[in-house]
Amino acid sequence: MKKQPIGIFDSGLGGLTILNALHRTLPREDLIYFGDTANVPYGSKSKEAVTKFSLAIARFLEKQGVKLIVVACNTASAQALGKLRKEISVPVMGVIEPGAQKAIESTLNRRIAVLGTEGTVKSNAYPKAILKRDHKIRIVQQACPLFVPLVEEHWGKKPATQLIARDYLNRVKKSGADTVILGCTHYPILKTVISDILGRGVTLVDSADTLAQAAHDFLIEQGKFQTKGKGRVRIYASDDPARFKRLAGYLLEEKIGKVHLKKLDL
Amino acid sequence: MKKQPIGIFDSGLGGLTILNALHRTLPREDLIYFGDTANVPYGSKSKEAVTKFSLAIARFLEKQGVKLIVVACNTASAQALGKLRKEISVPVMGVIEPGAQKAIESTLNRRIAVLGTEGTVKSNAYPKAILKRDHKIRIVQQACPLFVPLVEEHWGKKPATQLIARDYLNRVKKSGADTVILGCTHYPILKTVISDILGRGVTLVDSADTLAQAAHDFLIEQGKFQTKGKGRVRIYASDDPARFKRLAGYLLEEKIGKVHLKKLDL
Repeated sequence: MKKQPIGIFDSGLGGLTILNALHRTLPREDLIYFGDTANVPYGSKSKEAVTKFSLAIARFLEKQGVKLIVVACNTASAQALGKLRKEISVPVMGVIEPGAQKAIESTLNRRIAVLGTEGTVKSNAYPKAILKRDHKIRIVQQACPLFVPLVEEHWGKKPATQLIARDYLNRVKKSGADTVILGCTHYPILKTVISDILGRGVTLVDSADTLAQAAHDFLIEQGKFQTKGKGRVRIYASDDPARFKRLAGYLLEEKIGKVHLKKLDL
Repeated sequence: MKKQPIGIFDSGLGGLTILNALHRTLPREDLIYFGDTANVPYGSKSKEAVTKFSLAIARFLEKQGVKLIVVACNTASAQALGKLRKEISVPVMGVIEPGAQKAIESTLNRRIAVLGTEGTVKSNAYPKAILKRDHKIRIVQQACPLFVPLVEEHWGKKPATQLIARDYLNRVKKSGADTVILGCTHYPILKTVISDILGRGVTLVDSADTLAQAAHDFLIEQGKFQTKGKGRVRIYASDDPARFKRLAGYLLEEKIGKVHLKKLDL
């Protein structure tokens, strides 16, 4: 049987944190990453727009013969997952469920905070996923819309980013949550900044490793797990691949190869 | 003859500073504003993508029977103006030429700095427009990619914005320029922050008033100037009009009415 790749997509760069985790956990699998740089950011756009972008990408990945699609974007997972599962013949995994599961396993005081884009927060996807499992957990949500541009512009280590994070995290600190979900794939890049503000007693949850583990288990279960060879990574961007390659270089753990231009059929 | 409106467009909210100036200078003219919230931001996207968006909007405005199109976005003016003038039958004005003209009139030491998005800076549109008029002027350019999200998120008055501006303006300060072009329609909203850093000796140039004056002169010249009635403003957004209305309310000098949804044919 032909080796089938795994498809991963995000609005831009953030999903590379998921790509890293998948590549670490599943080093023999071929991975296709799609960054929708023509339509980034998703976080401040409507559910309808995000669904349209997501569907177009998923259809492209489906045509590449992928065996699994990983929605490596919280906004798209929160707003488009149902629709993708209806319209796409390949299994689709999102980042919300693994993140919610991991947060529940981590919290001791049953108080969880969710950091996300405006779209993710408004969708209430994390609270729904958490309360479905344990309806007594108390949840506070905080939209952090400037985190994405700060990451995309490499401002992670500048004092301005600390100041902005301090502002966003004020309510989270007051809530007493012992577990904070980094509900956007860009946010793990700001882990140190966030952790410095919240203190060591607070666990930061990002879904990358849990998701990679879930993908691993799924492939074994389906008998589609690669046991041989070395996985290759192929990257597509919907606009300005040269710019994407330059920026992705900072985030990707592996050396980045050519970034291919693929415009979406919207 | 039927009253013909003026069409104005921007990637999002920034162009509202131009809308304000046009409404002040031409209070009898009907204005149609188009904010491309489905595709914002333009500043970090390719010339090809920006041209495609701009053309689709200009075609929509043309169909509304406008007598003039004002490209109230520096990135689109820098990258798509030539193409628009070729493809669209209505006269098209950009923000670059009036801004360059005003800066030349303002500078005493013949040193001008240009602040803009990545796209505007890369296009060299301002240096070209300035050097065409006076080839001995010394120019420094600085991309300020975080200014747009800071404005869109209403962070203009927060200390983090000062810190970020201080970083961006470092080179500009060192250059000794006595005139600084605010080469993005979002930036006039940060005028106070920028001016506090650069000091009173530096003149900040935004093209809004010059552009409005140029539009005024053009309409008189063409015999298309309205001498009666009160101008109405009609606003379209390509995604999430409710969100656009909420944010535009902070920027617009007039009370904002309904924001209409108009998806682009791309």
